[in-house]
Amino acid sequence: MSFPARLVYLDDNNRTERSRSLGKLVLSMSMSLDGFIAGPGDSPDNPFGDDGQRLHAWLGDGGEDPPSYRPADEAGRTVFDELLATGAVITGRRTGDYVNYWGGDHHDGVPIFVPTHQAPAGPTPGNVHFVTDGIASCAAQAKAAAGERDVMLHGAYTAREALRARVLDVLEIQLVPVLFGDGRRLFDDPGSDRVELDLVRTLESPGALLLRYEVRYA
Amino acid sequence: MSFPARLVYLDDNNRTERSRSLGKLVLSMSMSLDGFIAGPGDSPDNPFGDDGQRLHAWLGDGGEDPPSYRPADEAGRTVFDELLATGAVITGRRTGDYVNYWGGDHHDGVPIFVPTHQAPAGPTPGNVHFVTDGIASCAAQAKAAAGERDVMLHGAYTAREALRARVLDVLEIQLVPVLFGDGRRLFDDPGSDRVELDLVRTLESPGALLLRYEVRYA
Repeated sequence: MSFPARLVYLDDNNRTERSRSLGKLVLSMSMSLDGFIAGPGDSPDNPFGDDGQRLHAWLGDGGEDPPSYRPADEAGRTVFDELLATGAVITGRRTGDYVNYWGGDHHDGVPIFVPTHQAPAGPTPGNVHFVTDGIASCAAQAKAAAGERDVMLHGAYTAREALRARVLDVLEIQLVPVLFGDGRRLFDDPGSDRVELDLVRTLESPGALLLRYEVRYA
Repeated sequence: MSFPARLVYLDDNNRTERSRSLGKLVLSMSMSLDGFIAGPGDSPDNPFGDDGQRLHAWLGDGGEDPPSYRPADEAGRTVFDELLATGAVITGRRTGDYVNYWGGDHHDGVPIFVPTHQAPAGPTPGNVHFVTDGIASCAAQAKAAAGERDVMLHGAYTAREALRARVLDVLEIQLVPVLFGDGRRLFDDPGSDRVELDLVRTLESPGALLLRYEVRYA
């Protein structure tokens, strides 16, 4: 891969502080007030679980491609546009498999990194990279690929792995005003370490409260 | 008890819309972003669980009485003052037992109602009423006692019972910027019904985001 090379290029030729700093690893998830990010019974045919689309009602009414879901309101657009300005995507294996890795192109052809224990046999769609040596390596590769831009992370299990490995920088949570009652939780890792957060931005979208937290590891 | 009588009095003598309307049943809980309202290992000697005080850091540094915890900031005071202006308190049996029912006086001597399967033997502290015929009856009695004022509800199990019985009107959640990782959850009722909420107020306190949701039962 040429990603580390690009970093070296920046270091050698562009010595301002700003251009040398890497972007952040940003988790983006839409979560009900009671902590669910999918309804019960999620599967490849039902990727959000039963009525799980409720959690994504803050987005616009898009089609196949993620960029087609741009919200109509300003707050929603602000967050959405930031996410689609990221320079790489990390997705969990489950999420990725469910949506066939967006055909290899989540947005703008940026590389998609997938932490996994074993890469699948057969051809890899588009710009998808399976990373088998752990989440920290996956995060480092994605950040190198993104350069100064942020990296978007999606997936509950992968988010928890990134927290454990202390490589997650930001949580961008779309807090949806509903009690889901059942389904798949974002934070479901009993006995994990306590992690302090800084709430750095609150935006009110008609369909969700858009909360940006920076992670403060002890 | 004289509470229903007071309601009749209002109905007979004070026929404006406003004076006839009862207050709301308002759940107030401080919750981590990952949904916990107490640390692990809560007990009478450790009522908030391990390091559970973290969740109440948005409050002031009070003493024995709830009113002594008035926060220093305006947003925190707004919510705190509303809660201490309630005309009755409902508390779960666990919470109540842990704190000995605040000696029978949570604030201003308002009555304290405790839904329970069996009232304890022996004398009842102060103005505490054990209600054994269900959460709906408990809510009705507390509302009647409070008149036009709201009723404050505290306790995770009791909150879930009130939601199931469709008697909870408002959730006032102090969303604390921390991932607790473990402990007791506010919403832990797998398979419960989905409940839509309206976010009606967002206040930013230095220690927590103060969110007020009205419940919309289907």
